[in-house]
Amino acid sequence: MKKCFENVRKNVPLVHNITNYVTVNDVANVLLACGGSPIMSDDSEDVVDITTICGGLNINIGTLNQHTIPSMFLAGKRANELGHTVLLDPVGAGASALRTNTALDLIRDVKFHAIRGNISEIKTLAFGSGSTKGVDADVADAVTDETLEAAITFAKEISARLGCIIAITGAIDLVADKDNCYVIRNGRAEMGKITGTGCQLSGMMTAFLVANPDNELKAAAAAVCAMGFAGEIGWSNMKPEDGNSTYRNRIIDAIYNMDGDALEKGAKYEVR
Amino acid sequence: MKKCFENVRKNVPLVHNITNYVTVNDVANVLLACGGSPIMSDDSEDVVDITTICGGLNINIGTLNQHTIPSMFLAGKRANELGHTVLLDPVGAGASALRTNTALDLIRDVKFHAIRGNISEIKTLAFGSGSTKGVDADVADAVTDETLEAAITFAKEISARLGCIIAITGAIDLVADKDNCYVIRNGRAEMGKITGTGCQLSGMMTAFLVANPDNELKAAAAAVCAMGFAGEIGWSNMKPEDGNSTYRNRIIDAIYNMDGDALEKGAKYEVR
Amino acid sequence: MKKCFENVRKNVPLVHNITNYVTVNDVANVLLACGGSPIMSDDSEDVVDITTICGGLNINIGTLNQHTIPSMFLAGKRANELGHTVLLDPVGAGASALRTNTALDLIRDVKFHAIRGNISEIKTLAFGSGSTKGVDADVADAVTDETLEAAITFAKEISARLGCIIAITGAIDLVADKDNCYVIRNGRAEMGKITGTGCQLSGMMTAFLVANPDNELKAAAAAVCAMGFAGEIGWSNMKPEDGNSTYRNRIIDAIYNMDGDALEKGAKYEVR
Repeated sequence: MKKCFENVRKNVPLVHNITNYVTVNDVANVLLACGGSPIMSDDSEDVVDITTICGGLNINIGTLNQHTIPSMFLAGKRANELGHTVLLDPVGAGASALRTNTALDLIRDVKFHAIRGNISEIKTLAFGSGSTKGVDADVADAVTDETLEAAITFAKEISARLGCIIAITGAIDLVADKDNCYVIRNGRAEMGKITGTGCQLSGMMTAFLVANPDNELKAAAAAVCAMGFAGEIGWSNMKPEDGNSTYRNRIIDAIYNMDGDALEKGAKYEVR
Repeated sequence: MKKCFENVRKNVPLVHNITNYVTVNDVANVLLACGGSPIMSDDSEDVVDITTICGGLNINIGTLNQHTIPSMFLAGKRANELGHTVLLDPVGAGASALRTNTALDLIRDVKFHAIRGNISEIKTLAFGSGSTKGVDADVADAVTDETLEAAITFAKEISARLGCIIAITGAIDLVADKDNCYVIRNGRAEMGKITGTGCQLSGMMTAFLVANPDNELKAAAAAVCAMGFAGEIGWSNMKPEDGNSTYRNRIIDAIYNMDGDALEKGAKYEVR
Repeated sequence: MKKCFENVRKNVPLVHNITNYVTVNDVANVLLACGGSPIMSDDSEDVVDITTICGGLNINIGTLNQHTIPSMFLAGKRANELGHTVLLDPVGAGASALRTNTALDLIRDVKFHAIRGNISEIKTLAFGSGSTKGVDADVADAVTDETLEAAITFAKEISARLGCIIAITGAIDLVADKDNCYVIRNGRAEMGKITGTGCQLSGMMTAFLVANPDNELKAAAAAVCAMGFAGEIGWSNMKPEDGNSTYRNRIIDAIYNMDGDALEKGAKYEVR
């Protein structure tokens, strides 16, 4: 974990974000906080040039529209040609046909290095919008100690099928490739009362992947641990009158002040 | 007031926001702070699906454009079909032809449960862009103790004409249906030095309306009291070096930490 | 400096911003903090009306797209007709063909009162995208004490050629017309770890220019001093657990609490 974080600070990965306008400012600030450098661009005539000069591409469909969807494909394919890291955050897949279909089309046409979402979004990618869901359909809707075993199996299977790292975040976070799954217990429930902690994590995970090309699974897990640990540190700095808006600042601040040693000590995970 | 707020926290209303990109993050965070759940979506191919799964729709024209305007109509009509709560925040109506006409077209084609704006925006909706303004035209440009009586009459008349709750916010806030008008004296002038307290209130009011279908006027008034009271609490937590950026956080924090009892005690209103 | 700031607070300049969605909220809040009033509008059918009622126009190409680019030209030309102040922030010029060409087309078709960017962006405007760069090409990529003399000459030359104030911000900030160059040493390196301090400065500079039509060079320099001095004050208010997200708030807060006297004392500059 330590080394993964230190590589981000050392390499200052430049990350191109095609992301939603709700949480974009926090994504930019958390990328700066962890040691990366953000660029935002979503026009179809701009994204190829921009992604070319970056090391990684973070595609987040949170406020997708008919003008930015083509940009996601253009940038994704260009990033693939250049061997850049590409991450997908399928925000709201399952909640609308446009989101579901865009996410499914993206994973068909673009090679992703990692996909990060909640269990519901990842299940949508796994089962598509069809009605025949097969055996995986009995994966529960939340990852808890009771459902952990099945969720790990599911994460590894989807990783094998889609050929990329799968990060499922929630009360317990899973970061899996086809063989191994990090089970991470950092974070606090109150993070769910802030908009965009997931989007922030996706941006940061892209930076961690870019900076650690030889150790991608661990790097993705390190980003998840860092975000959750920042949630714990941020919470410990809360005063009685503070609420979710201040908590948002304190989490990004905690990433800013974190280093590899602190992350190594604070990360709570096992590999299964 | 107490019960209205508690119903928001109990029912966790899901609110679809088609809103401007200036204050959207704060709208999302204040919705989470009060106990609601926000979704943002503005593409014409996405909004019908998204509004279908929500309980309320908040339409804010702050950064309207030719691609999001059709989405406002599509989502509004779908929400009407489903009997969902729909609120309009006519940001800048009167400041440009596009804003004025879009707002007027929206109130013609979509049935709104509530409209929230400042006195200038509401007057634009009342009088249209025509030059013949009729008797109402002598409503003053600010609601003060001197102009209160006329403003209350105006608010009730517009409510009767448009068939929805009218919330006029300013130094004194009015929340009226055709028969009754809440006159609310919470809040602080310094809230005007933060971008988006109005947009935040519109999002929060939508959540309050969704959670209190049998008591809509009181629910709308409760949202206004909550926002203003949060402005008072937030201000009381300010330190000498704090300014409008920190104040923004403290107001959302105050909503996060507020409960029905506190609101009941802090709300300053009379019904006229 | 004192008088320039006081004129902003006295005149409350209304600034129309066509700006990126990454930092737009901070731009609005810093404009309110300094005493201005922000309006955001970027649709081609809306911008002419909106810019007409404002005193200044701030064009920032940070997330330009094919729908907002025409709006920049429409608003810019309208502002020119009305004699309004117009400022360009050529974010990312040089990083993509679309950004470079849009910025070059804008400075050809719109008369700007000021252009604010980093040295790399300003060099792109100066030399275009062609390969023959001429004598100026040996301007260094950072303004330091070693490169200061050449950078001042460059800034004055570009100002003469483009006919507007040139503000080059970095470790040392330059604000030049063809004859004089303010060399400003306010600010802190940590401001680079926050997204959008440059965008904020562009918004604020527009307000300073609008409020000081008879003293534009000094007004532009005053805005740069104010931003940098706010960075110093904001930093002095940081606690050990604070990071870049809180620093962002403290800088805007410092502008909010600043007055002309404080700026006069805190500004560190010489005119060359």
